[in-house]
Amino acid sequence: MAEFTHFDAAGQAHMVDVGDKNETRRVARAEGTIHMLAETYAMILGGNAKKGDVLGIARIAAIQGSKRTSELIPLCHPIPLTKVSVEFDTGTACEIRCLVTAETVGRTGVEMEALTAVSVALLTIYDMCKAVDRGMSMHGIRLLEKAGGKSGHWVAGAAAEEA
Amino acid sequence: MAEFTHFDAAGQAHMVDVGDKNETRRVARAEGTIHMLAETYAMILGGNAKKGDVLGIARIAAIQGSKRTSELIPLCHPIPLTKVSVEFDTGTACEIRCLVTAETVGRTGVEMEALTAVSVALLTIYDMCKAVDRGMSMHGIRLLEKAGGKSGHWVAGAAAEEA
Amino acid sequence: MAEFTHFDAAGQAHMVDVGDKNETRRVARAEGTIHMLAETYAMILGGNAKKGDVLGIARIAAIQGSKRTSELIPLCHPIPLTKVSVEFDTGTACEIRCLVTAETVGRTGVEMEALTAVSVALLTIYDMCKAVDRGMSMHGIRLLEKAGGKSGHWVAGAAAEEA
Amino acid sequence: MAEFTHFDAAGQAHMVDVGDKNETRRVARAEGTIHMLAETYAMILGGNAKKGDVLGIARIAAIQGSKRTSELIPLCHPIPLTKVSVEFDTGTACEIRCLVTAETVGRTGVEMEALTAVSVALLTIYDMCKAVDRGMSMHGIRLLEKAGGKSGHWVAGAAAEEA
Amino acid sequence: MAEFTHFDAAGQAHMVDVGDKNETRRVARAEGTIHMLAETYAMILGGNAKKGDVLGIARIAAIQGSKRTSELIPLCHPIPLTKVSVEFDTGTACEIRCLVTAETVGRTGVEMEALTAVSVALLTIYDMCKAVDRGMSMHGIRLLEKAGGKSGHWVAGAAAEEA
Amino acid sequence: MAEFTHFDAAGQAHMVDVGDKNETRRVARAEGTIHMLAETYAMILGGNAKKGDVLGIARIAAIQGSKRTSELIPLCHPIPLTKVSVEFDTGTACEIRCLVTAETVGRTGVEMEALTAVSVALLTIYDMCKAVDRGMSMHGIRLLEKAGGKSGHWVAGAAAEEA
Repeated sequence: MAEFTHFDAAGQAHMVDVGDKNETRRVARAEGTIHMLAETYAMILGGNAKKGDVLGIARIAAIQGSKRTSELIPLCHPIPLTKVSVEFDTGTACEIRCLVTAETVGRTGVEMEALTAVSVALLTIYDMCKAVDRGMSMHGIRLLEKAGGKSGHWVAGAAAEEA
Repeated sequence: MAEFTHFDAAGQAHMVDVGDKNETRRVARAEGTIHMLAETYAMILGGNAKKGDVLGIARIAAIQGSKRTSELIPLCHPIPLTKVSVEFDTGTACEIRCLVTAETVGRTGVEMEALTAVSVALLTIYDMCKAVDRGMSMHGIRLLEKAGGKSGHWVAGAAAEEA
Repeated sequence: MAEFTHFDAAGQAHMVDVGDKNETRRVARAEGTIHMLAETYAMILGGNAKKGDVLGIARIAAIQGSKRTSELIPLCHPIPLTKVSVEFDTGTACEIRCLVTAETVGRTGVEMEALTAVSVALLTIYDMCKAVDRGMSMHGIRLLEKAGGKSGHWVAGAAAEEA
Repeated sequence: MAEFTHFDAAGQAHMVDVGDKNETRRVARAEGTIHMLAETYAMILGGNAKKGDVLGIARIAAIQGSKRTSELIPLCHPIPLTKVSVEFDTGTACEIRCLVTAETVGRTGVEMEALTAVSVALLTIYDMCKAVDRGMSMHGIRLLEKAGGKSGHWVAGAAAEEA
Repeated sequence: MAEFTHFDAAGQAHMVDVGDKNETRRVARAEGTIHMLAETYAMILGGNAKKGDVLGIARIAAIQGSKRTSELIPLCHPIPLTKVSVEFDTGTACEIRCLVTAETVGRTGVEMEALTAVSVALLTIYDMCKAVDRGMSMHGIRLLEKAGGKSGHWVAGAAAEEA
Repeated sequence: MAEFTHFDAAGQAHMVDVGDKNETRRVARAEGTIHMLAETYAMILGGNAKKGDVLGIARIAAIQGSKRTSELIPLCHPIPLTKVSVEFDTGTACEIRCLVTAETVGRTGVEMEALTAVSVALLTIYDMCKAVDRGMSMHGIRLLEKAGGKSGHWVAGAAAEEA
């Protein structure tokens, strides 16, 4: 099994040296879901109209959040994101699933940027709806896929092949 | 059922007026869990020593993240936090549970600060361990309790009495 | 005529001492307008639907920008905003007027927060439409009114009474 | 006429994919003007001496503001600026014109960085002088020229050739 | 001797609870010095004119830096500064001494805000002069005095009475 | 002797044009020391256990601080750091020396990133120990070495060869 790369031989945290890595196109997809009451779900879906566009605002928050990843996650490298897109799947009653795709052309991957964007999207939905439903909860925040870089292609569920 | 407070009568987002609210002591507790492989769990618990202190770093990231909440969540008010504490429960195999307590003396609650801190803690654990376990996932990020302010005391599981 | 308060007797910049001022409710209203081609104007008004909600995104950017005012304007005090609202007036062809109301309960005014929000709203509209209309221009960014604090009520156009 | 590039086919906002664009040198020049009372204008010009260096501070604020552009404008890409310069033209009575040149070697343009720097410069002048002149107003904030990248050279006033 | 307050009984870091403390006026003064070559010293003193105002820019950086203290220092509380002033003492050849006074009306002190401002001022001087003098060094960054709050008045050199 | 590069011919500050420089690997090493009472020194060394890990937290703060350098230092270019490592030398009684190595592959050097990280590390140690020792002071914050870029290799103490 691999070692934690964020610590040196003495167990001290460091920002890993990526100076020797190539600048390649790197993509990451992540997802997460927020569960809520039926009434909350109905109110959100009725949005974009009089009731306010909860998902539109969560999408903007997610994109802006992805740009702050290296400020939030201590050992993340600052990365010039070349693309961020955010989708919401509302097909299942009482839950909203958020999917984010992040890309860069750089020396390290964008998994954390995708996961941070998902988390900020779900937190924003929580914030906007908490006055009517404080019991909402977030689940299944995880990486779906990554591509590019030395460690290659990784797809969730096919994790056994990796490492 | 209540309305979404983050939209005005025309459905436009706004930062809600809290100028008339009293400055009172407000507390929020939130939690969330990250699931991982047995090997990853063992490596984290072996930390604080040679392998690096994953949870110590996640704790710092959570505290720092809580201070950035109003930058990340579009309609959150800036709040002068008076206390943030972060605990990790490692009693269940293959998962780490994070509990955050946030407090302020202010005009609005600190639910989002507590939830943001939990999310940043879990994301930081993911980041530090992803080289060995990309399939980790986060679950059960939710508010446990809030106290203070006009809407009073709320405890998860007792949500029916509220609203 | 008054002196520039942001400099001391030796002409050196400082963050003015407001520790002796009372915490009172303070309000500021500001406005600004962006001019554009007829086609751009039509495309924005057709938004909120398939073409994308330009004004909804500019509103969020304005609210978030108001919270960053003290980071952007060197001698501004950090202020805990208690309310920010953003309206767009689209009643005149080929221009969009943005109106912001900002409030705090604090020791100094929120004029800069209101003006910063207006500027960020207009810049965001420019950004979202620049692919079709690089020649847009912004005008009339100004304070409309302020209330609260020692210097009292001020209304644009009634400036003679003031100072 | 072109489409708004910041929305996908479904009208949802995204950070546009620039991963396929070449890293080329990109330049943008922008301007804007702040109008003021004769006394205010005289006080600013008398600066740099005992009364404080209003324009020197506004210049620093503009440069720092340009570096925050992608935090303020939701769909802007983070860009490694390679140059920012700020000039003030005080040749016309009762107004100060700010000109900014921004450059990068990157995959997308720096128009927003130049416009943001102009806006922050003018807001800073307003802030420093507002104690003596709350009625100041900002006008003509616009792009003057851009060069580099696929869309080529654009000069204000020659906009007809473009698009 | 007192305990480290930033750790709980189990040795875990936390943001200390200050919710029970009173809002009182708190002041801190700090200083620090940068040493340099005679030529560099001469060039800086010749500033404010053609050669550029090194100290004016360092002053602005210090004020802006003080507002970011709680973002930089992990366990610092966010504090609404009510005053920051920055002076430079150039009376000794080949060194520039920076003195900062910071104030708040709040629940915790502003020592870190004053010390952070001093550090950012000295770093900015270094940055602006490093092309001619990379060997500059910073010394004697320390708290001079603090007042307000439960721990009372403290003056450097009188430290024995304290603790 | 060279000129200050951060000012143009008219003495106005600007962010220097680095667009023509090559992207090369650049390294900087910096150091600084904090002096303290014997009891404070003993308490810090006893850390990582029950008393809390002062140096572990200072290390994280330093790494995070290095990423904010261009926000703190007005004329610094934003730089995509490829590596940051932080060591503490506790071999001398009553003082802790911090050493930082920063690297990038870019168009300008990382001296300021290394020096900023050192400063934030020392400030964080001060913050965590100030309840027991307000008289701590910081000394010898300086660049040790830089490599890469047009100005070549520089080592402290060998400064005469340079410039």
